Amino acid sequence: MADTPTDRERTDVEEAIMEATYRALREQGYADLTMRAIAEEYGKTTAAIHYHYDTKDDLLVAFLEYLLDTFLDHVHDAATDDPESHLGALLDGLLIEREDDYDLVCALLEMRAQAPYHDAIREQLVRNDEYLREVVRSVVADGVERGVFRDDVDPDTVASALITIVKGARTRFVVLADPSVLHVARDTADAYVQGVLDA
Amino acid sequence: MADTPTDRERTDVEEAIMEATYRALREQGYADLTMRAIAEEYGKTTAAIHYHYDTKDDLLVAFLEYLLDTFLDHVHDAATDDPESHLGALLDGLLIEREDDYDLVCALLEMRAQAPYHDAIREQLVRNDEYLREVVRSVVADGVERGVFRDDVDPDTVASALITIVKGARTRFVVLADPSVLHVARDTADAYVQGVLDA
Repeated sequence: MADTPTDRERTDVEEAIMEATYRALREQGYADLTMRAIAEEYGKTTAAIHYHYDTKDDLLVAFLEYLLDTFLDHVHDAATDDPESHLGALLDGLLIEREDDYDLVCALLEMRAQAPYHDAIREQLVRNDEYLREVVRSVVADGVERGVFRDDVDPDTVASALITIVKGARTRFVVLADPSVLHVARDTADAYVQGVLDA
Repeated sequence: MADTPTDRERTDVEEAIMEATYRALREQGYADLTMRAIAEEYGKTTAAIHYHYDTKDDLLVAFLEYLLDTFLDHVHDAATDDPESHLGALLDGLLIEREDDYDLVCALLEMRAQAPYHDAIREQLVRNDEYLREVVRSVVADGVERGVFRDDVDPDTVASALITIVKGARTRFVVLADPSVLHVARDTADAYVQGVLDA
């Protein structure tokens, strides 16, 4: 497992601002998001937010870190000792469980699309991508070590492949607004895993 | 093969405006794109563009159609009679050959991310997705019919899976700015195809 750069305690105030950001992003999308909208969700002034986060980009970087932490806590709770079902639970979390969060998936795609123009956001998105890949990689490597998966597979390659399928599904979900693309991707991931991993 | 809704002649003027849009999008991205920037690339006034396209969204819908046509012409030229290498050429065109077109891939992801807020653009993106899927589906169906691929696969499912991998690769390409993700996706597509299609 990689270091857990995101594994830090948030104060109650930071937690409340993250939750307000979540609601504001879902309602406004990213392009139209203002500190004022976040402050309104938070129930305080924009100054109260600026006290913790200098700029909107700083706040959004913290929010991306918060989303990663939330997801990691969730998969940690869902982890099983069996590599195959652990991998399945991860893929469910990354795909199927996003079905009811269309507005957030849209806001996150907007952020990804703006990455080339916002260095700090790009850096955090790259860290999130790396971290997720590492989580998937370690489950695959564990399965290879224990003989559940074939020993000639490269866990790094498998992890990148699965993250590619996840990102593609979410991009198509935004454009097509049809949750069935998440299920198609879940089946694609299973077919890929069966093809390359089954011992 | 599906109907070819996009298969229509463009006038020289329309062609020139499309090429100007291509250059402007690569230089400015989508969020900052103005009719003025396109007109500057075109070398005429914005009125000259508005004569052909009422709004920026109308122009961008036409541009998405133009990109699809350009790609279809290209794959038509690269088509072979062998379903396996035909599929390979399609995937190369959708993935590897985008490597040198980072700025356009970024602009297109911006458009996808804005799809939920721009109905006409969303509709054209959905048509492009459907059309590409149909092109892939027909190559797979041809291979199944001729016994090159297994006869128990559903060409529709395979096509959706491959388009998911393509979209995921492009989204990661934008965020990571690293063309190796396109090659990883190309290998992922091959592994998937081998797993489900090999007779």
